Amino acid sequence: MPDFVRRVPDGDNRERLICPDCGHIAYENPKIVVGSVVVESGAVLMCRRAIEPRIGFWTLPAGYLELGETIEEGALREAWEEAQAEISLDGILGVFSVSRIGQVQIIFRARFAQGPVFAAGTESLEVGLFGWAEIPWQEIAFPSVRWALEAWRRAGAEPLGAPARNPSEDSRGTRRLPG
Amino acid sequence: MPDFVRRVPDGDNRERLICPDCGHIAYENPKIVVGSVVVESGAVLMCRRAIEPRIGFWTLPAGYLELGETIEEGALREAWEEAQAEISLDGILGVFSVSRIGQVQIIFRARFAQGPVFAAGTESLEVGLFGWAEIPWQEIAFPSVRWALEAWRRAGAEPLGAPARNPSEDSRGTRRLPG
Repeated sequence: MPDFVRRVPDGDNRERLICPDCGHIAYENPKIVVGSVVVESGAVLMCRRAIEPRIGFWTLPAGYLELGETIEEGALREAWEEAQAEISLDGILGVFSVSRIGQVQIIFRARFAQGPVFAAGTESLEVGLFGWAEIPWQEIAFPSVRWALEAWRRAGAEPLGAPARNPSEDSRGTRRLPG
Repeated sequence: MPDFVRRVPDGDNRERLICPDCGHIAYENPKIVVGSVVVESGAVLMCRRAIEPRIGFWTLPAGYLELGETIEEGALREAWEEAQAEISLDGILGVFSVSRIGQVQIIFRARFAQGPVFAAGTESLEVGLFGWAEIPWQEIAFPSVRWALEAWRRAGAEPLGAPARNPSEDSRGTRRLPG
C-alpha cells in the first residue's frame, strides 16, 4: 500500500490524505458517540470500564454510532451491550464536542423499558445505579461523563429544554494542545 | 493496494473492512453534518446549491463537520463558506438521523452577527432570505431541510426546547431500502 500524501484536492480548501497512485481521498471525519443517562428513582446507571482507554473508571453506557444506525438505535444498542439494559429514550440531554479527539457526543436522558434490570456487558467490569451523592466522582472516566451528569442534575425530571453543550469554563475537550 | 476483506475482528461483533496484508481495520463511521437556520426579521437564509447532489435546489448553510472542529465552529464555517455570512448561534434546533446514507445532522438556530450581510459562496448559485410563504418548497434539496424549517416554525422566536428529531411520519432518511 503506497504512503498517502497530504495535499489539497481540486475544489477543496484543506489538506487531505490522498493515495498518490489512484487518487483516492481518505477523508478523516469526526466520530459520533451516542449514550444515555438512564434514570431510575433518582439514581443513574453507570458502568465501570473493562476496556481501554480508562479501564476501571466509571462511564455512562455510550459508544460509537455505527453506519446505518439512527442516533436512537445506537443509544439503545450501547445500553444493551455495556449494561445489558433495555431502555426507553426520553430526549436529548446534551450534545458535546470533544474536538481534540474528533468526537461529537449525543447523550440522551432515558429510563428502563421494563424496570431496573441490568448486568455487566463484555465491555464493563460492573454496572450499578448511583444516587447523586454516591456517584464515584473521583473515578469518572471522561470529562463529558461529568458534563452529562451535571446536565441531568440541572434538568431533573422536568421536560427537556435545549440540550446542554460544552461548559464554557471547561476546555478539556476542545482546547488546542501545544504542538 | 490489496483488496480489503470483510470479517469480524477479534473482540468485535460486526464485519469490518480489513487489509489482508497488514491487518489495518478501515472503520466506516457515520458523518456529522452541521448547519443553521439563520433568521432575520422572520425570514430564513437559504442557499441554492452549485454542486451535486441536488444542484440547483435550495438548502440551508450546512456541511460536513471537519476533524478538530466543534459543532459550533463547523456551523459558523459553513455559513461563511456557503453564504458569506457571519452568524451567531442561538441553540440546537434539531438533530436528525439520515441513517440510510450514514449521516447525523445537527442544526442550530442562528442570527446574523452584524446585520443581514450575505452573498453566494463557491458552493452556492445564489442565496436569499425567505419568509415562510416564500420558501421555494417545491425546490428543496433534502428532506432534512424541510424538517429543520418546520422545527424553526414550531419554535418561533421562543427559547429553544429539546431539539426536534426525525418526524415519525417521514421515514425517508432512515428506512431500509430493498436489497
